[in-house]
Amino acid sequence: MTRTVTVLGAGAMGSALATPFREAGWQVNLWGTWLDDHLLEACRQDQPHPRTGVRLAKGTCLFESGQLLDALADAELVAVAIASVGVLEVVRRALPGLGDARALLLASKGFSPDAEGRVRLFPDALRSLASEHGQRLPPIVAIGGPCKANEVAAGRWTAAIFGCTNRSIADQAANAVSTSAYRAATTDDEVGVEICAPMKNVYAIGLGLADGLQERAELEERTEEPFHDFKAAVFAQAVSEMVTLCRFVSGRSETAVGLAGVGDLEVTGLSGRNKLYGARIGRGESAPDALAAMTAAEQTVEGVPAAHLAKDLVDQRDAAAWSSLPLLSAILETLDGHPDAPARVAEAVLPRAAAISASGQPTAIS
Amino acid sequence: MTRTVTVLGAGAMGSALATPFREAGWQVNLWGTWLDDHLLEACRQDQPHPRTGVRLAKGTCLFESGQLLDALADAELVAVAIASVGVLEVVRRALPGLGDARALLLASKGFSPDAEGRVRLFPDALRSLASEHGQRLPPIVAIGGPCKANEVAAGRWTAAIFGCTNRSIADQAANAVSTSAYRAATTDDEVGVEICAPMKNVYAIGLGLADGLQERAELEERTEEPFHDFKAAVFAQAVSEMVTLCRFVSGRSETAVGLAGVGDLEVTGLSGRNKLYGARIGRGESAPDALAAMTAAEQTVEGVPAAHLAKDLVDQRDAAAWSSLPLLSAILETLDGHPDAPARVAEAVLPRAAAISASGQPTAIS
Repeated sequence: MTRTVTVLGAGAMGSALATPFREAGWQVNLWGTWLDDHLLEACRQDQPHPRTGVRLAKGTCLFESGQLLDALADAELVAVAIASVGVLEVVRRALPGLGDARALLLASKGFSPDAEGRVRLFPDALRSLASEHGQRLPPIVAIGGPCKANEVAAGRWTAAIFGCTNRSIADQAANAVSTSAYRAATTDDEVGVEICAPMKNVYAIGLGLADGLQERAELEERTEEPFHDFKAAVFAQAVSEMVTLCRFVSGRSETAVGLAGVGDLEVTGLSGRNKLYGARIGRGESAPDALAAMTAAEQTVEGVPAAHLAKDLVDQRDAAAWSSLPLLSAILETLDGHPDAPARVAEAVLPRAAAISASGQPTAIS
Repeated sequence: MTRTVTVLGAGAMGSALATPFREAGWQVNLWGTWLDDHLLEACRQDQPHPRTGVRLAKGTCLFESGQLLDALADAELVAVAIASVGVLEVVRRALPGLGDARALLLASKGFSPDAEGRVRLFPDALRSLASEHGQRLPPIVAIGGPCKANEVAAGRWTAAIFGCTNRSIADQAANAVSTSAYRAATTDDEVGVEICAPMKNVYAIGLGLADGLQERAELEERTEEPFHDFKAAVFAQAVSEMVTLCRFVSGRSETAVGLAGVGDLEVTGLSGRNKLYGARIGRGESAPDALAAMTAAEQTVEGVPAAHLAKDLVDQRDAAAWSSLPLLSAILETLDGHPDAPARVAEAVLPRAAAISASGQPTAIS
């Protein structure tokens, strides 16, 4: 019996997921948004996908933006892999076709303010949206963990984590789409998986600063020592803050310390746009100039809006938590154009300066 | 009043620590072992230190191997920065000069079996050694965290963590040697700091495999996709296992999730000999060939003996813990020459394969 998964979004991650889904034996309907026509065209000509550099998995069925409900017909699973900004609009249009789906796999990640400006994670926003239209969504399975689209597309080993408040649904979905290369762990901590994903983009900006400092030191000071100690200090503080933020939305610290947090932060610090944006600032560009350059190159830096929405989230839920989030504060000041962002971030992640006596001499050890 | 810190070991880390210690206002006596004569000679000629590429901090006093007790005279602090293999012998010789020291800062890290072969961490081994000689050591402050010697020497931002069972001593030592660039957090979890340091070397071998696979793929398959997802999956599993090992020796999980574990693993996965050894194996060299090549280049791979001693530690204390340590098992098989180490490690770090029905079709989602 043919079983169908419909993937909404034919960008990097949407097209990449076709690789494990096809390998696991599914009929894959890949639907492109109104912005994806040229991507589908490249796939039809069997060229590498423009966003991943990898050819689409053989046997994937392509659907144009006008064919949304056709693409959803008979879908047992629906995977949402739309850029954050378009998620709500696409799911709204897809609602009439979601009735038979057993689960909604959510690869898109981010924060979404409601009409009153209250910041929510996507699953809550999507359930509210469906409810406003008198519908119920199928169970949402949040997809997290260190999954670069080009590597998933190429069949590189990848460990995802599927989070669903109904753990059994997460298990079944993981079993249904796992392959020898693409494997999914499971958790019932939906909110933990959801909040780690945008936050790792925010913190990757801090990791990038260290890489940029190293490039600048090589060029200007002709010193060879990298800033790896600094990068690692940022990394450790980022993990600590992701643990805090997980608890903050009633998620679990294990999620932040596992694939969804530590794992995804590691991969995001190795490559990607958020890191590259941080590296530009570390090299000495102003934050606005760096962002303009990225935008001009059609490179979205998802960590920037996520940082501002995370600020709202903290302000709205418990402003006292800021004392545990010095790195997030420092990154927000970086985005706002702090004149010495690396020093500001260092002050946030390094342990407090030593208490030196008034004489300038170290204090005695008793 | 002049206050003196004596650093035992003039290799990379010993010479590097002179930078913050001098900056913090200490008289620094740097003592070289019988293997360090050529290193001291380079320092005397104001050449870059051969192991760090950075000039020794100005005003550091140098002591030859025969001048051990002279170097220790009036030392308020003694820092041990000897290669693991020489730690016990050097401290044994230093015992007569340690009487006045207020704390023993322990930068050397590793496991040390006792006469019966029972594996201990260095602080226990050193306290036993002193006791056998009818002496008591000053309080031991374990130094951990992401501290590359060349970066510490160059005054790059560095976040260390000082662990002492007497937290107040850790705080005082941290205050006494911290500078604007070198900062130390503190903990009373001495064993946690101690066990993370050798284990991060072991796990960095696994991180290196991913880098080696990428190099091989570029050369042989001409594919460009890296193995970052794999590296991140290894990283997340390594953190999970360091948490397990911390608890195992009555340390705390926060230590493994903080600077000593996550932070030090991050920096060790960015560069260093353990990672390079793993990369050789990932490129396709056999483990013995890779180790021979490193040894020929005078590059000690500390993770190799540490892995074998960690195996003994687990076997001796609680063999049931192996079920939580699949990556350590896989790395041990890698060192023993497993014919496909990357696949063996992938099997250890990727979530379990999907349960596929006998028909080869995915199972239904109910």
